[in-house]
Amino acid sequence: MKLIARLYDVDSSEPRVVAHGEDCKELGVKHMDRVRIDARSSKVIVVSISDSVVKKGEILIPMSLMTTVGAEVGTPVEVVYSPKPDSVRSIRKKMDSVKLTKDEIHEIVFDIYEGKLSKIEISAWLTALYINGMDNEEIANFTQSMVNTGEKIVFDRTPVFDFHSLGGVPGNKVTPIVVSIVASAGLMLPKTSSRAISSACGTSDFVEVFCDVELDAAKLKKISETIGGVLAWGGSMNIAPVDDMVIDIEYPLGINPRAQMLASILSKKLAISATHLLVDIPMGSGTKVKTLEEAREYARDLMELGTKLGMRTECAITYGDQPVGNAIGPALEARECIRILEGMTHPASVVEKACDLAGMILEMGGIPDGPTRAREILSSGEALSKFREIVEAQGGKKNIMSEDIPIGKYVHDVKAVRAGYIHSIDNKDLVTIARAAGAPADKGAGILLYRKKGQRAEKGETLFQIYADNQTKADRARDMAIKLAPVDIEGMLIKKVPNPSALKGI
Amino acid sequence: MKLIARLYDVDSSEPRVVAHGEDCKELGVKHMDRVRIDARSSKVIVVSISDSVVKKGEILIPMSLMTTVGAEVGTPVEVVYSPKPDSVRSIRKKMDSVKLTKDEIHEIVFDIYEGKLSKIEISAWLTALYINGMDNEEIANFTQSMVNTGEKIVFDRTPVFDFHSLGGVPGNKVTPIVVSIVASAGLMLPKTSSRAISSACGTSDFVEVFCDVELDAAKLKKISETIGGVLAWGGSMNIAPVDDMVIDIEYPLGINPRAQMLASILSKKLAISATHLLVDIPMGSGTKVKTLEEAREYARDLMELGTKLGMRTECAITYGDQPVGNAIGPALEARECIRILEGMTHPASVVEKACDLAGMILEMGGIPDGPTRAREILSSGEALSKFREIVEAQGGKKNIMSEDIPIGKYVHDVKAVRAGYIHSIDNKDLVTIARAAGAPADKGAGILLYRKKGQRAEKGETLFQIYADNQTKADRARDMAIKLAPVDIEGMLIKKVPNPSALKGI
Repeated sequence: MKLIARLYDVDSSEPRVVAHGEDCKELGVKHMDRVRIDARSSKVIVVSISDSVVKKGEILIPMSLMTTVGAEVGTPVEVVYSPKPDSVRSIRKKMDSVKLTKDEIHEIVFDIYEGKLSKIEISAWLTALYINGMDNEEIANFTQSMVNTGEKIVFDRTPVFDFHSLGGVPGNKVTPIVVSIVASAGLMLPKTSSRAISSACGTSDFVEVFCDVELDAAKLKKISETIGGVLAWGGSMNIAPVDDMVIDIEYPLGINPRAQMLASILSKKLAISATHLLVDIPMGSGTKVKTLEEAREYARDLMELGTKLGMRTECAITYGDQPVGNAIGPALEARECIRILEGMTHPASVVEKACDLAGMILEMGGIPDGPTRAREILSSGEALSKFREIVEAQGGKKNIMSEDIPIGKYVHDVKAVRAGYIHSIDNKDLVTIARAAGAPADKGAGILLYRKKGQRAEKGETLFQIYADNQTKADRARDMAIKLAPVDIEGMLIKKVPNPSALKGI
Repeated sequence: MKLIARLYDVDSSEPRVVAHGEDCKELGVKHMDRVRIDARSSKVIVVSISDSVVKKGEILIPMSLMTTVGAEVGTPVEVVYSPKPDSVRSIRKKMDSVKLTKDEIHEIVFDIYEGKLSKIEISAWLTALYINGMDNEEIANFTQSMVNTGEKIVFDRTPVFDFHSLGGVPGNKVTPIVVSIVASAGLMLPKTSSRAISSACGTSDFVEVFCDVELDAAKLKKISETIGGVLAWGGSMNIAPVDDMVIDIEYPLGINPRAQMLASILSKKLAISATHLLVDIPMGSGTKVKTLEEAREYARDLMELGTKLGMRTECAITYGDQPVGNAIGPALEARECIRILEGMTHPASVVEKACDLAGMILEMGGIPDGPTRAREILSSGEALSKFREIVEAQGGKKNIMSEDIPIGKYVHDVKAVRAGYIHSIDNKDLVTIARAAGAPADKGAGILLYRKKGQRAEKGETLFQIYADNQTKADRARDMAIKLAPVDIEGMLIKKVPNPSALKGI
């Protein structure tokens, strides 16, 4: 059937077309079935049905698909029914806890990439993956398929160092510091990062406060090879694009299946030809990894997978029971990060974590006494110079300073309602509050902690401040803070134990 | 924020609204987040984002939602951000294989009903349910929640008999026969049926060939109480509506989680106040239930659940290894069904199944020698009269006859390519072929079997005929039939075993 192409942009995270009910009846397609669209080239795609937003004889096509098939708005395209792809059967297999072959995995990944699977099917896939998992052989094949469906970056320099944090701990702004230290030592670390999914601030969310993170592959290559480091957003290149496509489904479900997570990390590293990889595994309540046992298991799997995939992989299990440093949110984290590069020694948790991780990478690169050397590079100002080189190369301000970063103007102080010691700080609640304040979309929004675990607060003293870019969100975040009370204060007396005999009136 | 309401009908199986990107940014909502829409009343709903199909300042609202909140096209509605409902957390719990409480189950069911959960979330829910399942206590609560989110029908007559087939066996056109026999015997059986999901023809798909199946509750009640039987489409009333809502997600995934299936059956029976229930469990390869063990387990669960829910429940395990009778597809099944009521004794499998099931119901109603009595009612023509009364009450032709039913005009004969015995008939392949021919949407489309298991066919004899309403679909179905070869013919010699020494050239 020939239908006239019209542009469509609803729900653009899922490539699909919209056709008129009567045309669909004639085509024999139901809602969420697939059609093949033919213009200069052809593509199979999920179809939605409408009788109002599209006219009979027309078909709504997203811009990306227009380009792919070479269709033009207002001209006819050929539309035919396309049967359910085999990958749906493989998804069913995973639901039934069957181990998938290399080909089956590749078909699923490829069909997601090609837009042949609907969100309903991808959601079922991720849920099945979350529940039934994959063994390391499947994960290695999964990783390779994710690499193969995207762009690969090959450098003229080797070795290629990389690192990654499993995340889940707020305020983890160490990346620019680590990259700057490692690059200062003469090693190349072309770092690609992500934006926040469910957290308050991903590395790219705060780096883009002071420079451009959307680099293409050529620019990433050039900056890395000349300066030794880069701070790019992974999503701006076409590396392992399927991972970014499934994130849109993972986010509303609040899940990140272990197999998906491991394949996601490793595929992005493999796609940029990493030869050496350090993985930071933050451990603690509120992070992805709750216990040392679990952290060790992740480390074992990552190292085994790294070997299977030809990357020398090491892991660092780090303290994640409370935020790293004091700042949470794009601008606030950017400021704290640059201050450390400028020579501030506080908060110590940021300095220590950055130097210990950088130190491990230096040692992987053959530089002895890595952590000591990392601290020297940081305190000497070499790391700051290197950082400024990178920022400038990425279109940021020359000689960037921490004070250049504007933060939210609407501030609420959250105070201690009683005196006592900070017993615990809930990572997830802090993230919820920072997000209510507008982070990560509102760059100035976030939280600044004034007290951390083990410290004492007197009644009425500020525990943390909420920053926002407008009053409504500042108020919303404050209400959330009152409801959640993320900072737990206890007196030295934890619980009174009454004498049971007194209760009996004796 | 106030936005002007406009009508939206894309993807109408999922109630959601579409707002402009800039408005969404100001509202602080992401794609698939939720907003509360306020006009005369309010409702929380999933939101999609577009910059082209909707203008800034406007919001696209499906008609059903317009009515619910009392909004009018062209007038403003209030739109505010609404946080993720708690039911998403309960879905996560089921992913983690945690037993859900009555309240948690109710919240999920209610939020699906209210349109608060997106298709992504419902897909994850169904997948988790498919993999991790529910125990009978959860299923009973699930059933009750499905009943409570819809309409209940209370009759002035008791007892209320009902029956249900688990399905999976094509050509199962016994329902009108069973209902007519039972009603002839003076018992009341207000039968609600479904349309095909993945099968070639549901009961309602073929009943609507000769009369109206979309009855409201008042009409169903009146016909049942006066005539004793009815043949309604369950979806036309608001009984257990959540079940119909999830079918749209189950269909593309090709799953029907056991807990969902059991709760679905029982909720529909409970909602029409059934006091006695017979469940037909077809067993065989290609049906839902493969083994006797599995069938017995279903029977045990159904009886236990029936007791928990206050319905006397019995089960019949029936032969499902090949189609019931010869006809598959709406018009063809309607014809075969009416012919049996008219006194035809062939195909015997239809007569036997209908009379045995009707007989069990008669015995549940205190009528001795049920199967014998059922056969008497059928052969005496009483069942035909009762059937015609029902058809007429549902707006069908007076004194309906099998010849009144038109069938597809485009016919292909599929012939035996060799002589032999029919070794097996693949239910699923027949369904695929019938659907390719246009069933169930094209009423005349389907398959007529000329040979069944154990019978002999000579080379060139017709094994089955394909019927379709147009040439394209007839050809498509024939191609599918050639590819799938659903009727397996073997000679008496099943396999030749060559002498291994001959292979070695000795």
